[in-house]
Amino acid sequence: MSARPISLGIMLHGAGGHMNSWKHPAGPADASVNLDFYVSQARKAEEAGIAFAFVADGLYINEKSIPHFLNRFEPLTILSALAVATRKIGMAGTVSTSYSDPFTVARQFASLDLISGGRAGWNVVTTPLEGTALNYSRPHPEHALRYEIADEYLAVTQGLWDSWDDDAVIRDRQTGQFFDPAKLHALNHKGRFFEVAGPLNAPRSKQGQPVIFQAGSSDAGIVLAGKYADAVFTHSPSLEETRDFTTRVKDAAVAHGRSRDDVKIYPGIGPVVAETREAAEAKYHAIRALLTLDEALAYLGRYFDHHDFSQYDPDAPFPDLGEIGRNSFRSTTDRIKAEAREKGLTLREVALATATPRPTFIGTGAEVAEKMIGWIDAGASDGFILGFPVAAEGLEDFIRLVIPELEARGRYSRDLPGETLRDHLGLPFKVSRHAGPQAQARAARG
Amino acid sequence: MSARPISLGIMLHGAGGHMNSWKHPAGPADASVNLDFYVSQARKAEEAGIAFAFVADGLYINEKSIPHFLNRFEPLTILSALAVATRKIGMAGTVSTSYSDPFTVARQFASLDLISGGRAGWNVVTTPLEGTALNYSRPHPEHALRYEIADEYLAVTQGLWDSWDDDAVIRDRQTGQFFDPAKLHALNHKGRFFEVAGPLNAPRSKQGQPVIFQAGSSDAGIVLAGKYADAVFTHSPSLEETRDFTTRVKDAAVAHGRSRDDVKIYPGIGPVVAETREAAEAKYHAIRALLTLDEALAYLGRYFDHHDFSQYDPDAPFPDLGEIGRNSFRSTTDRIKAEAREKGLTLREVALATATPRPTFIGTGAEVAEKMIGWIDAGASDGFILGFPVAAEGLEDFIRLVIPELEARGRYSRDLPGETLRDHLGLPFKVSRHAGPQAQARAARG
Ligand SMILES: Cc1cc2nc3c(=O)[nH]c(=O)nc-3n(C[C@H](O)[C@H](O)[C@H](O)COP(=O)(O)O)c2cc1C
Ligand SMILES: Cc1cc2nc3c(=O)[nH]c(=O)nc-3n(C[C@H](O)[C@H](O)[C@H](O)COP(=O)(O)O)c2cc1C
Repeated sequence: MSARPISLGIMLHGAGGHMNSWKHPAGPADASVNLDFYVSQARKAEEAGIAFAFVADGLYINEKSIPHFLNRFEPLTILSALAVATRKIGMAGTVSTSYSDPFTVARQFASLDLISGGRAGWNVVTTPLEGTALNYSRPHPEHALRYEIADEYLAVTQGLWDSWDDDAVIRDRQTGQFFDPAKLHALNHKGRFFEVAGPLNAPRSKQGQPVIFQAGSSDAGIVLAGKYADAVFTHSPSLEETRDFTTRVKDAAVAHGRSRDDVKIYPGIGPVVAETREAAEAKYHAIRALLTLDEALAYLGRYFDHHDFSQYDPDAPFPDLGEIGRNSFRSTTDRIKAEAREKGLTLREVALATATPRPTFIGTGAEVAEKMIGWIDAGASDGFILGFPVAAEGLEDFIRLVIPELEARGRYSRDLPGETLRDHLGLPFKVSRHAGPQAQARAARG
Repeated sequence: MSARPISLGIMLHGAGGHMNSWKHPAGPADASVNLDFYVSQARKAEEAGIAFAFVADGLYINEKSIPHFLNRFEPLTILSALAVATRKIGMAGTVSTSYSDPFTVARQFASLDLISGGRAGWNVVTTPLEGTALNYSRPHPEHALRYEIADEYLAVTQGLWDSWDDDAVIRDRQTGQFFDPAKLHALNHKGRFFEVAGPLNAPRSKQGQPVIFQAGSSDAGIVLAGKYADAVFTHSPSLEETRDFTTRVKDAAVAHGRSRDDVKIYPGIGPVVAETREAAEAKYHAIRALLTLDEALAYLGRYFDHHDFSQYDPDAPFPDLGEIGRNSFRSTTDRIKAEAREKGLTLREVALATATPRPTFIGTGAEVAEKMIGWIDAGASDGFILGFPVAAEGLEDFIRLVIPELEARGRYSRDLPGETLRDHLGLPFKVSRHAGPQAQARAARG
């Protein structure tokens, strides 16, 4: 096995991934709208050599939503702010192709890419949450349609990003020539969902185009990733499942004429680390204790159309729910049902484990580092996105305890290799579709 | 007359308002996509006590567009970046209600308002440029319809901004209560153009809501401003015309149950200032010389559907254009035609004066300062937005030569009075529509 360095991203999601992380004393309770906290997390991550910050998103809340979704920054604005507060770390954010306009989104990411000096990334999502339609004066497109829209949307966006050749803008004060019209390309896209003439009113960036992340894991999601994605954000249920997923995405890339290395896989993991295994377990239990049983039952209910689980005896076996849960979370609800059945779990056990899942990566710094290396060496992924249950504590522990262990094993460097997000991810500069065959070939050789 | 202090904003528009400002040696040629230049202009303005930065915008270009429109930052992203690079100066940006979604725009401005600590402003425009439709897969709404959409759009946006009462989010770690559900308000808007349930996933800011700027000057635009605007950005053809406009906007505010002081008028001016009157004239001529006659003819053509003016003798009287120019720029083209006829101008004179209009405010620092004070004291406006033909030179000259003269006359302070953009504009905190009658009354008393 090659000794590839471990590449890391970090979720910036307020107080953390745990629904009650705001209650944990390690960070501010208002973290999800606290600029200073975002800046400090991004700077700590940057100093530690983490390649990119990653901001998830959602476009619909109601009074039952989990706390850190209720009040949060919008991704493009917070990333633009963080770009100025940092120098090297990548800036990736989530925007839905089901509820936005490609011209606007292409522009905003192009602008972020300029502001950050080539560090922008877009996490393309199709929005599973039906309620979103209630905020956007239109019906919620169903799953297959969402992916058909996303496909055309990405073709438009990437086309717009190549409006200006890298040397199109001349700005010759002597001759008065501002640009070379032969190097400006209108898109003139007319498709099933979009008609976009272009050109975009923004140039290409230091990395060519923003990095495309993708985060859908259905068959349609994998096809989309194979076609367009530079990186994929996915779950991390186990090494084997993640490796299977990785293989499928890389196969899909090859099926689209790309190489296996053109798309990097980043499972999200939420390590809980301490000096000893027992101390790590204690940390996990402190996180679990942020939640009452009632809150855990309500959390579980979110996946099942807010089904009222408080009506059951929590210590009886997990109830038979029949059709309940055949919704957009179905892959999750099916897994919950199956696991409860197979392991004979009670409702209490299912609720607590769903609301505060036991981290796949838990233990001492050495243990977590070894496990991460194991995943990389087994080909399960190219790196990881760190989404700590409690952000403030998690990042500090990780930097203090895991990174030195990765360094000691020669598998991590705090010096990011280049300047752009593509550099950090080991991806080449994105050559324009309008570049000559030589430039294309040079890029293909890497 | 009261000795009201002069309130100022500054346009950040790359190298400047003149179409060939990029050729002027005072600043970088790539200013419109140069973050360092934007940061330095914003910081200089902030140090000089300028109340807000203002970013205009457009959503359509073609190869005939003027240079600084071809490549530019997108307003929300650049303002979010500048918010972190500054501490007090307001951050106002243009977004069109004809080509965006109210939920997204409400969120992005709410997020900018949080990031900046209550310094956000939104310049609401309806987009006159028909070509925009070519980038947005939809027909261009005509003038009246655009304003009907804008009206409903603003009702939705301001409704969303009041989703959370100021004391709705509690975050009590002891009791586990994150928020008070009685203080969270869904909007449930169902109108002619929009259906938006809400609530917004962002809290109100330090200034309550972002400031609403408006920049349309038709009757419909004035009605919209009277109903919603906190500030209006307008032209400055002459003191008398601007005073008339100001009177009409304030009348419209009164007609909507607001006070004359609730809406502040900011004409855009592009002062050219130097140590002597002659030196100021020389500066104006240097700016005029940035343009050839051919370029001036092409610039003129932009207002007349790209009519080819090079077919005429430039030194003959301005040609009779008949119906040409009866387009979305009609108020401008009518003025150009009338002035040419009345003053018996040649095509060359019209073209040069249109492409590089003689500034209304030109002269020594004292002369420009006196004139500005004259406008304020005559009730023509509440302040000015500085849009220098050449940004780098203009701001430096203005700070060096005009501000000291305003200060010497007791009409300007470099200390901004408060923290938020509303503070800077002399507007009260925006009380929530859901606040009790006492809070509303307190706010009305100011
Ligand atoms: C790891 C991961 C992260 C995701 N992050 C977001 C997100 O931030 N916002 C969002 O709306 N959807 C997010 N999604 C949802 C996906 O974009 C997608 O819509 C959903 O998973 C359904 O598509 P699928 O069936 O292809 O998985 C995420 C999905 C995964 C697997
Ligand atoms: C001073 C001023 C500034 C404007 N700035 C913009 C702008 O930045 N972007 C834009 O699309 N329209 C801008 N507009 C256009 C207006 O929003 C409006 O659509 C246009 O003037 C037509 O409306 P009206 O007939 O009410 O004036 C501006 C107009 C004025 C008067």
